[in-house]
Amino acid sequence: MLKAFDEFLKHPSEWLRGAGPVSDIVMSSRIRLARNLEKFPFATRATAASQVEVFKVVKDGLMHSVTLKQPLILEIRELDEVDRQFLVERHLVSREHIVHADHKAVAIGQGEVISVMINEEDHLRIQVMQSGMNLRDAWSIIDALDDELSEALPYAYSTDWGYLTCCPTNTGTGMRASVMVHLPSLVLTKQINKVLHTITKLGLTARGLYGEGTEASGNFFQISNQVSLGRSEEELIENIERILKEVIHQEQAGRESLLSNSRTQLEDRVWRAFGILKHAKTMSSNEALDLLSAVRLGVDLGLMAPNGGSPSSGNGMDRTKVNELFLFSQPAHLQKLEGKALTAKERDTKRAQLIRSKLGGQG
Amino acid sequence: MLKAFDEFLKHPSEWLRGAGPVSDIVMSSRIRLARNLEKFPFATRATAASQVEVFKVVKDGLMHSVTLKQPLILEIRELDEVDRQFLVERHLVSREHIVHADHKAVAIGQGEVISVMINEEDHLRIQVMQSGMNLRDAWSIIDALDDELSEALPYAYSTDWGYLTCCPTNTGTGMRASVMVHLPSLVLTKQINKVLHTITKLGLTARGLYGEGTEASGNFFQISNQVSLGRSEEELIENIERILKEVIHQEQAGRESLLSNSRTQLEDRVWRAFGILKHAKTMSSNEALDLLSAVRLGVDLGLMAPNGGSPSSGNGMDRTKVNELFLFSQPAHLQKLEGKALTAKERDTKRAQLIRSKLGGQG
Repeated sequence: MLKAFDEFLKHPSEWLRGAGPVSDIVMSSRIRLARNLEKFPFATRATAASQVEVFKVVKDGLMHSVTLKQPLILEIRELDEVDRQFLVERHLVSREHIVHADHKAVAIGQGEVISVMINEEDHLRIQVMQSGMNLRDAWSIIDALDDELSEALPYAYSTDWGYLTCCPTNTGTGMRASVMVHLPSLVLTKQINKVLHTITKLGLTARGLYGEGTEASGNFFQISNQVSLGRSEEELIENIERILKEVIHQEQAGRESLLSNSRTQLEDRVWRAFGILKHAKTMSSNEALDLLSAVRLGVDLGLMAPNGGSPSSGNGMDRTKVNELFLFSQPAHLQKLEGKALTAKERDTKRAQLIRSKLGGQG
Repeated sequence: MLKAFDEFLKHPSEWLRGAGPVSDIVMSSRIRLARNLEKFPFATRATAASQVEVFKVVKDGLMHSVTLKQPLILEIRELDEVDRQFLVERHLVSREHIVHADHKAVAIGQGEVISVMINEEDHLRIQVMQSGMNLRDAWSIIDALDDELSEALPYAYSTDWGYLTCCPTNTGTGMRASVMVHLPSLVLTKQINKVLHTITKLGLTARGLYGEGTEASGNFFQISNQVSLGRSEEELIENIERILKEVIHQEQAGRESLLSNSRTQLEDRVWRAFGILKHAKTMSSNEALDLLSAVRLGVDLGLMAPNGGSPSSGNGMDRTKVNELFLFSQPAHLQKLEGKALTAKERDTKRAQLIRSKLGGQG
């Protein structure tokens, strides 16, 4: 497995640090721009030769970017399966990007704030992530980078349609802004389906933790704009922010209602989750996500003593630690930590061991 | 509630101390003798006047017993519902004994080893309990007491039938010897029904934690002789011991098989139970029994560190502590500890709190 990842393992991605606005509910904000080079065929009509050429041109542009400061460039075909999954788990590449690996690559900037996929569905998929509810900063960073890259790279652009993309749903701004929200109280109080239905009618869409087609594990939902055409980037971001504000308000109201009406049951759920995480000897990825979601809610509502309950244990329980466990308990992260490929059964044991050690449980 | 019980609350019953032979599998051994006074009508034909007279005669006999050394005598009708249940939970009286309370009483000796119910189904139900697999000592104690009482009390006895009892199933020796066994591995490996079926064919019967008609909560089973006629007490005890030896052997084999073939799953089950017990905020009586059963198995198999897992917590986890929790988490014990009657919901909260505090969890 790749040595270059060792540095990543020492700390979670910047966007996981649990800071930023409304970070008790919003895990992270992300903006991605789809861009293509003019005079090169788009993915559906591309040849091996044209993809090789696109890779060269884009790589050269990225390596000379002042914003990116010499990014780490990884060719997907040179990565083994675990390393590829590792990138997906860190949201640095899409799940689609690692399947047919030829001529595909990803450029990763400092602190994993910026990443650029090369030869994904579009020639470039530029992405910026931020911790908390912070689409504005994400937009500032990505807009500046996009301006810089457009000087070096001849983007396919139409004055009628805007940026041209492989799939027409991305044409226009080529932008997707998405926010990862933690909505445990809306799930617990069974209001989530109503909320998601409303969101859809307002031009947004909700997906699971790892994008399209994934389940909403751990009560996390990725909420993003459905259309990218006919409005400016700022308008699209404003629309998401306005609707998200309402979703956040409803989640907050749900949390307050649980605290007022079922405090004991809520504390019981949170602390049982903590107790199981701290002591289990084997645990699936999905169970870990669900239990960590409960503990995160407990932390965010101040239901857990700052030292994780046991006054003498000295193990702090805070949002950053929970966020780290969300990431590091994922299959590829576990295997990177262990330094070798593990079977599903071995991962379940390793996962439980990792979580126990982070929570100060028995070894 | 009765002040006399305060002393009981300071320590669990002697038979719960988790010592004695095979105490990793056998919780306790008990022998009871059914005795009636001649010239007084038996329960089904008794009048209030005859029961009053029986109570006087028996009480006088018990108070003068050298073996009993001035037992505590409690009239059931003077006890409130919680105190009555408290006696049932400590196995000092039967569940039947507390329903129609008039003229009924119980005499309790030092350390709760000996108890005598007055005007239960029979005029006297003498009982001796011991920790672990120890029917022999129980028999020595109860035999001596019975001999002594027979000097003072004119027992109903027939040279043809032996001791005469209200229900013919008890006639003969009037003895029921029973052993409380913890059989979690036979339950986990789904062999329990086969074992219980075999036992029944060999003249024994298996009941739940609180006798006839109660469920086998916490994987505890009371195994006792079905017939009391046609054999001597020693023969009946030998028969139980012989069969129990085989049951114990099978439980031990089951435990070894689990350790060899599914150690991780077993440890996982044990430690999750510990984690939930240590952190839950509300817990039903049945759930507590099930989780404590798993922890007891973990203790008995040496799967738990002597300090309960958290090196700094300083809370030892041993069989005595688990046994205490089995008893003190029962509804009436919780209410006695609290010093007042509690609703079911309040008990669930109090139970979780008591267990947490004993296990060193957050308050």
